[in-house]
Amino acid sequence: MERGTLLKAVSQAQSVVERRNTIPILANVLIEAEGASVQFRATDLDIEVLDKAAAMVERAGATTVSAVTLHEIVRKLPDGALVTLSEEPSSGRLTVEAGRSNFSLATLPREDFPVMASSEYSATFTAPAKVLRRLFDKSKFAISTEETRYYLNGVYLHTAEGDGGRKLRCVATDGHRLARIDADLPIGAEDMPGVIVPRKTVGELRKLLEDDDMKIEVSVSETKIRFATPDISLISKVIDGTFPDYTRVIPQGNTRRLEVDAAEFAKAVDRVATVSSERSRAVKLSLDEDRLILSVNAPDSGAAEEELAVAYSDEKLEIGFNAKYLLEIASQVDRENAVFMFNSSGDPTLMREGNDMSAVYVVMPMRV
Amino acid sequence: MERGTLLKAVSQAQSVVERRNTIPILANVLIEAEGASVQFRATDLDIEVLDKAAAMVERAGATTVSAVTLHEIVRKLPDGALVTLSEEPSSGRLTVEAGRSNFSLATLPREDFPVMASSEYSATFTAPAKVLRRLFDKSKFAISTEETRYYLNGVYLHTAEGDGGRKLRCVATDGHRLARIDADLPIGAEDMPGVIVPRKTVGELRKLLEDDDMKIEVSVSETKIRFATPDISLISKVIDGTFPDYTRVIPQGNTRRLEVDAAEFAKAVDRVATVSSERSRAVKLSLDEDRLILSVNAPDSGAAEEELAVAYSDEKLEIGFNAKYLLEIASQVDRENAVFMFNSSGDPTLMREGNDMSAVYVVMPMRV
Repeated sequence: MERGTLLKAVSQAQSVVERRNTIPILANVLIEAEGASVQFRATDLDIEVLDKAAAMVERAGATTVSAVTLHEIVRKLPDGALVTLSEEPSSGRLTVEAGRSNFSLATLPREDFPVMASSEYSATFTAPAKVLRRLFDKSKFAISTEETRYYLNGVYLHTAEGDGGRKLRCVATDGHRLARIDADLPIGAEDMPGVIVPRKTVGELRKLLEDDDMKIEVSVSETKIRFATPDISLISKVIDGTFPDYTRVIPQGNTRRLEVDAAEFAKAVDRVATVSSERSRAVKLSLDEDRLILSVNAPDSGAAEEELAVAYSDEKLEIGFNAKYLLEIASQVDRENAVFMFNSSGDPTLMREGNDMSAVYVVMPMRV
Repeated sequence: MERGTLLKAVSQAQSVVERRNTIPILANVLIEAEGASVQFRATDLDIEVLDKAAAMVERAGATTVSAVTLHEIVRKLPDGALVTLSEEPSSGRLTVEAGRSNFSLATLPREDFPVMASSEYSATFTAPAKVLRRLFDKSKFAISTEETRYYLNGVYLHTAEGDGGRKLRCVATDGHRLARIDADLPIGAEDMPGVIVPRKTVGELRKLLEDDDMKIEVSVSETKIRFATPDISLISKVIDGTFPDYTRVIPQGNTRRLEVDAAEFAKAVDRVATVSSERSRAVKLSLDEDRLILSVNAPDSGAAEEELAVAYSDEKLEIGFNAKYLLEIASQVDRENAVFMFNSSGDPTLMREGNDMSAVYVVMPMRV
């Protein structure tokens, strides 16, 4: 096999392998050579990645070796090298040959490798990588890291009524902020069950979605989700829990409208937050006719203030937010303008990109 | 002041400040405005950095503020911004203004700032940044991290007889490997005392040496060393200890000569070391007529072997080294070829860059 092809396949597989394993075979990748291709399979028992790469197979066979070691070796081989994988009949070791390099790697029996049981999927649809990437990228920052609220440790992928009809929707929240991202509903997704895709799966999935126009086949059941390209498939268990009713969290009656240049706003928030102590990173927004003053007051270290020209025509308002949450939300905005909809200084605030309803964020205020 | 000028001055100063301080004022930078410039001074009690930047000074004054906060603020200001620093008369706080941003920072009295006592230096000389950079860059990897051997926790800068006369020399060693780097002796350095420059100072110094042709003024006493450019000066205590007699460690009688392509050699060592377990990273070199076989045997994980075409015409030799040490030494080589001089498999090995005697390395073998 060509080194580049092999590296790509092994990279994707090894990344799912956990670095600390109490079960030795989980550190390994299962290599199966047959026909004109080699398959690399790795798992952490929750996620399974299967990578297929074209190869000249002289003799079919299968074994397992350390995913990390194999990946490191292939990575360090010179670009363009031709790599031969073969089994030493006597020792059962895997030989990796390339040019004048020769490696002999300890193996574990293929029979011990836990291949994930195949499932019946209740819905299958296809979506461009770009669409899925947007859904997950724009929502994942709000995933909760609190292990006790395990049902919030992922992105809730489901269908829902959105702006202009039924949508494919991703929602994530940690109770302090929420992201709700919509995309047009792909054919075949109408009856999919709602599933909570775990944080690690969202991260691993990201690598399948680099190529904008790649069509990704998504299959969903109550317990599993599968993402597949012609060469790679990623199967993951979904979180066994009920995602809370997020719709009640999204404010409907906020009427005070602030429009800001998203990039300028994010930079100003970042600047004024510099003086605040790590723990209570509160930024105060003081709104007046077309004027926004961002301020931070940290008695110990100092104070900061910055004025921004904005579009605002409602009555005066003062409201505080965690600087980190404001920054994260502002940095989701792809277009120039971010629109904030406020109610009072104690109520959740809604943020969206211009007038686009397909990406909506909610952030809880903080007393300042 | 222009933001870029200010950022440069504050960056250099804040980097010497320790992140965890029990003495609050050590987290601060002393700002002194007078004449047409502002000075920024920071210290960790062992190293003092003094940065001078051109500024329009309306009113002379001095105060101290958190080095990290000031640096963060200046870093986040837009490029090209004009920054004004002033003291709030009532609160004693420092006001930082730029465009529509306004910061007010807590201060500590300038009188409390520990300015390093000035010293009499017994020797002063000037050397191009490039020359000093080479001396320290090529030796610092061998600095010991063992705190009990404090006299090895730095680079020994001194004068010595070298190839073709008296030289300015840097030596570092941790007992497993040693680097000895020579440069032509600058005028004025003849009578300098030998000093051990601490690891942290070597790191901070590095930032003064980016500009190849910058002339650096070096002043040395028994207890301190000072490096100065027109804008920056760095004064450091030196390690109070005696550097061991390293000359006895450098083998004189090694006759078996191996010449390798340094880059190829380093890559091959890196590859074969992949299979070895973290702890005992031993690589075996098996030498025969113009042939080098690098091999690693790690019973648990596997074995690796790679053959290199080299220049070697002595009798067969097998010798083992720590892979990390071999890699570090090979990566010091600037020219194409590295020359190893071996004695037996139990003796220290000498390595140099081609036939250049101005950079010599010693590495202890390891039983394999």
